Amino acid sequence: MDFDGLYDYFKTHDNYLILTHKSPDGDTLGCGFALCSVLRDMGKNANVINNENFPVRYNFLYEDYYYEEFEAQTIVAVDVADEKLLGSRLTKYFGNVDLCIDHHVSNTGYAKNTVVDPDASAAALVLYEFFKEKGIRITNLVAKCLYTGIATDTGCFKFENTIPRAHIAAAELMQYDINFSHINRKMFDTKSKQRLMVEQMMIASMEYYFNDRCSVICLTKKLMSESGVEPAEFDGLASIPLSVEGVVIGITIKQRHENVFKLSVRTTEALDASAFCKRFGGGGHIRAAGCEIEGTLEEVKSKVLTEVSAILENDQ
Amino acid sequence: MDFDGLYDYFKTHDNYLILTHKSPDGDTLGCGFALCSVLRDMGKNANVINNENFPVRYNFLYEDYYYEEFEAQTIVAVDVADEKLLGSRLTKYFGNVDLCIDHHVSNTGYAKNTVVDPDASAAALVLYEFFKEKGIRITNLVAKCLYTGIATDTGCFKFENTIPRAHIAAAELMQYDINFSHINRKMFDTKSKQRLMVEQMMIASMEYYFNDRCSVICLTKKLMSESGVEPAEFDGLASIPLSVEGVVIGITIKQRHENVFKLSVRTTEALDASAFCKRFGGGGHIRAAGCEIEGTLEEVKSKVLTEVSAILENDQ
Repeated sequence: MDFDGLYDYFKTHDNYLILTHKSPDGDTLGCGFALCSVLRDMGKNANVINNENFPVRYNFLYEDYYYEEFEAQTIVAVDVADEKLLGSRLTKYFGNVDLCIDHHVSNTGYAKNTVVDPDASAAALVLYEFFKEKGIRITNLVAKCLYTGIATDTGCFKFENTIPRAHIAAAELMQYDINFSHINRKMFDTKSKQRLMVEQMMIASMEYYFNDRCSVICLTKKLMSESGVEPAEFDGLASIPLSVEGVVIGITIKQRHENVFKLSVRTTEALDASAFCKRFGGGGHIRAAGCEIEGTLEEVKSKVLTEVSAILENDQ
Repeated sequence: MDFDGLYDYFKTHDNYLILTHKSPDGDTLGCGFALCSVLRDMGKNANVINNENFPVRYNFLYEDYYYEEFEAQTIVAVDVADEKLLGSRLTKYFGNVDLCIDHHVSNTGYAKNTVVDPDASAAALVLYEFFKEKGIRITNLVAKCLYTGIATDTGCFKFENTIPRAHIAAAELMQYDINFSHINRKMFDTKSKQRLMVEQMMIASMEYYFNDRCSVICLTKKLMSESGVEPAEFDGLASIPLSVEGVVIGITIKQRHENVFKLSVRTTEALDASAFCKRFGGGGHIRAAGCEIEGTLEEVKSKVLTEVSAILENDQ
């Protein structure tokens, strides 16, 4: 569906329920609350829901939001590539999504109507360009939601997925009253006390090998339980080992079961993480890949370092 | 001087020596090497110098640069607000700078000719807009230098000083072959092993007060010397205490002499760091300020926390 079709769709439908993906991020929530606000502005009924409660971290996107009572007729998913990503509490919408607005090239086409731009850095960029093309009024709140979606999905315009159009949208959206630097501080420069503690523990225990070209962090069940920190705070640590200057392969070894460890491997341009993980029956992308290895921690580490040694030699 | 004047100036002068500021950053170096490359492209002689050696961290800006032998006739300073910032080895240029291209509102006007745009997020933005307006050829190298200047001075488009024109420039510059995500990874997502260790030590020893609304790190001479880490790695830690969610005032206490401590205070929108430091005879900006306090570490901390307690009560 193109932007003309989408505009007609919004004009001719009502009573919208907007679905965001589980473990929600700034893009799915930004799109959800921006679209909800625009639809209400058009005189429509609209609500936003998520598998869980909306995270406090994003409360600036929904502080003026309220739930309306009406019977949902039009189910819209935003930034949801696959209906499975809606989460276990929203399974009743599987097969029942009327419209999906997204930017993932992997979108499964599960919705009856789909607007997807796989070049777009964020679903919020698709939505912004739609509002702009159709002359739909963008309020400060909508601008704040869309800026947040674009900024968070691009790591604040840092990552490879940032396209010139993302910068153009930012240039335009920051002219609304959105306090973008406050948003960015909250999104990128602050962490929970627990998370900071976890990262600090990982950095303190990081091991370096092969002239500091390889770094390894190990996360055992014992360490996690003794820390007293919620397990969720131990997610997404895989980028830490590669954050050291000179490291070309950063490895996170996380215990799954007694003698089973999950490896997350990150590499710079110099090496292929996916090829590395294939040696252990895993796979992934060229810079980020994973695999599972059995054995004690010492055995796993030894196997891994032997392979690292081999690829670093090839590399020289 | 306006862009027309600047263009004429470049056409009618030759044998350029481009000065960058001491403790060089991405903006001064980006401007230096971009301007040097453009001038050489115009058939002029040009070199870039700094008070120190060019930092390895920025080697991607000067890997193709070579020093030319000629007698300097035109002295140009880039991103240098005050000639004192040239550094102790470049004092012979004090009073002898012919042209300055800058973006600091505080520029002292020390140069014979000055092009300054105090709204610009970076000096590299001034230079980019000049090249663009005058149709001067921008090579991939020049684009890389200018992008780096803009990205580093804005914290990758994160800080308050980011203006829409900075995003527009980024959108245009990233269409050259510059591998911007690689630049950003190097500039923002990697740290030296020593620096990472220092930050980890600081986070591990961070103290929290008043319901975690105030956090404090203490840097004694003893701790610094025992760490075995170069003193320079202990600079610029002042943003760490404020990086914890919920903290509204973050304080770094750094020992200067036996019983003299330097305070760096950072605050969120909720509090005035400058007013806080004025209570101790210091000053600064509303979100970042400093002062010096005498006493033992325990005495200093006690004085500081008493004042923090007072302003947090006012704030509620």
